[in-house]
Amino acid sequence: MNKPYVLGIDIGGTNTVFGIVDARGTVIASGAIKTKSQPVFDDYINEIYVEASKMIKTADAEGKIGGIGVGAPNANFYTGTIENSANLIWPGPLHLAEKLREKFNIPVAVTNDANAAAIGEMTYGAARGMKDFIMITLGTGVGSGIVANGQMIYGADGLAGELGHVIVRRGGRLCGCGRKGCLETYCSATGVARTAIEFLDAAPNEASTLRNIPSGDLTSKDVYDAAKAGDDIANRVFAFTGRILGEALADFATFSSPEAFIIFGGLAKSGELLFKPMREAYEANALKFLRDIKILPSELKEADAAVLGASALGWEAQRLSTEPAPANA
Amino acid sequence: MNKPYVLGIDIGGTNTVFGIVDARGTVIASGAIKTKSQPVFDDYINEIYVEASKMIKTADAEGKIGGIGVGAPNANFYTGTIENSANLIWPGPLHLAEKLREKFNIPVAVTNDANAAAIGEMTYGAARGMKDFIMITLGTGVGSGIVANGQMIYGADGLAGELGHVIVRRGGRLCGCGRKGCLETYCSATGVARTAIEFLDAAPNEASTLRNIPSGDLTSKDVYDAAKAGDDIANRVFAFTGRILGEALADFATFSSPEAFIIFGGLAKSGELLFKPMREAYEANALKFLRDIKILPSELKEADAAVLGASALGWEAQRLSTEPAPANA
Repeated sequence: MNKPYVLGIDIGGTNTVFGIVDARGTVIASGAIKTKSQPVFDDYINEIYVEASKMIKTADAEGKIGGIGVGAPNANFYTGTIENSANLIWPGPLHLAEKLREKFNIPVAVTNDANAAAIGEMTYGAARGMKDFIMITLGTGVGSGIVANGQMIYGADGLAGELGHVIVRRGGRLCGCGRKGCLETYCSATGVARTAIEFLDAAPNEASTLRNIPSGDLTSKDVYDAAKAGDDIANRVFAFTGRILGEALADFATFSSPEAFIIFGGLAKSGELLFKPMREAYEANALKFLRDIKILPSELKEADAAVLGASALGWEAQRLSTEPAPANA
Repeated sequence: MNKPYVLGIDIGGTNTVFGIVDARGTVIASGAIKTKSQPVFDDYINEIYVEASKMIKTADAEGKIGGIGVGAPNANFYTGTIENSANLIWPGPLHLAEKLREKFNIPVAVTNDANAAAIGEMTYGAARGMKDFIMITLGTGVGSGIVANGQMIYGADGLAGELGHVIVRRGGRLCGCGRKGCLETYCSATGVARTAIEFLDAAPNEASTLRNIPSGDLTSKDVYDAAKAGDDIANRVFAFTGRILGEALADFATFSSPEAFIIFGGLAKSGELLFKPMREAYEANALKFLRDIKILPSELKEADAAVLGASALGWEAQRLSTEPAPANA
């Protein structure tokens, strides 16, 4: 019989957060540890186990967790591992799913954070009932999760959905991936700060409150605050960011003709500052019959979003472990 | 019980070809009519019915056709119609699947030509056994068919897979869709001729056998022949075309991380003239972990390719009509 809860674990570069979630997307208990506290990966897994087990006991949820879902940078759904662990302190490959399954004795599924967010949105959020949508996550980088025919697209190797690395300006800004002009160099939180610095440098005689902040400390939040306060350069930064994103979405739409784009992450909270130029650029650049595709903000509560996304994959883990094998297996 | 044959119908702007195909992809009989011969759509459908029925009788295949698959410009798998029939002489919407089903009393499925080619390649060609691949068709335009998780991606409205309209040069060449810089303005057969004319104009003092052809008559075949004969401008045209295509494939790979790209259509027969610069540009532009994706020519015999592609959808039509309804329907 299916159990009433899942455990969601979101592994970030700094914090690892976890929570018990019910079928309606209510987080009934949560906890966190520091991702870098244990130099040995097995000890880190053990710390998750110890802390999450305490939480499960306190919440009276022992024996009621049907699956564990994990969102982690570069995690591969098919292999359950993190091959490229550059964002973490342990050398890869990390056998994440296997080690958690051994500890908890509960089915585990893992994927990258953007795919987890997409599954979360489909299970509890703005994409409920949608079979075709594209999730765009605007954080330190730009991630994406693509759902078509009601299924997550993992690709031949589990690594599909890297739309943050579509080249939007050939020969443009240097990206962390080593290539130039990737979408995420412009439309991530970091990209917004880069644009602000460029725009400030390009108009040295124009007043801006952003000049009060050392450029090394400038964040997308600073640019947002300045734009809301009427700073012209800051407003131009958002117009520029939204335009590049809208142009990119117009290209993405030709691929899977989704019902909607769901925009998630810190920058998505910029509201119309970002969404207005994004929608305008989308409509100006999309194929005629694709112009009506909705562009929606995420509906996952931000404080819970990472855990909710990961937890949604826990239902998948439970389902995969309990469904009968295909007839032709 | 499943029947041994399917009927494939490919509706082109000029010719409508059809054929009886067995499960191994052998075309056991074929025929054709002129697409424009009947001013009334119902009469056109009737002519297909009359001619195909004769063929079926001659081939002793009466009662042995399990499904009909149709490839046609802008045909929508979900609705069975052609809404935008701009490439045909009849005003849309054309109720293609419904009218053929009424005539033949056999299950019918329709899709656009590029999707049909992808299903053909998966059923009989270079993509056999692949669950994730992208078909690129290089003809008068550039089409695409995307398969992920073993399924064709039709999108929310049946119109997915328009990669020929990804903008590869912002503000670039005017496209038939009304936008600028679409992939197909550069990498279709027509695009190759446009590039040749541009390159000839840009180097007025450079000798080229292509100057013997009036620019209005210049075709991609002329450019191919000249390149093979050592013409430098013609060779540069292929280098340019291959580069743009390779750059575009590098972006497409981030979407679905396919096992392979399959290149189909007249230009695909240009061999290494096109494939060498395409592969080089792909490798130079792809994300590191996506660089090994194969770029393969189609394996469908060209004379039969259109009928084979359409026919492959006939198996799908048969399957959809005979499988039990889902338990939750």
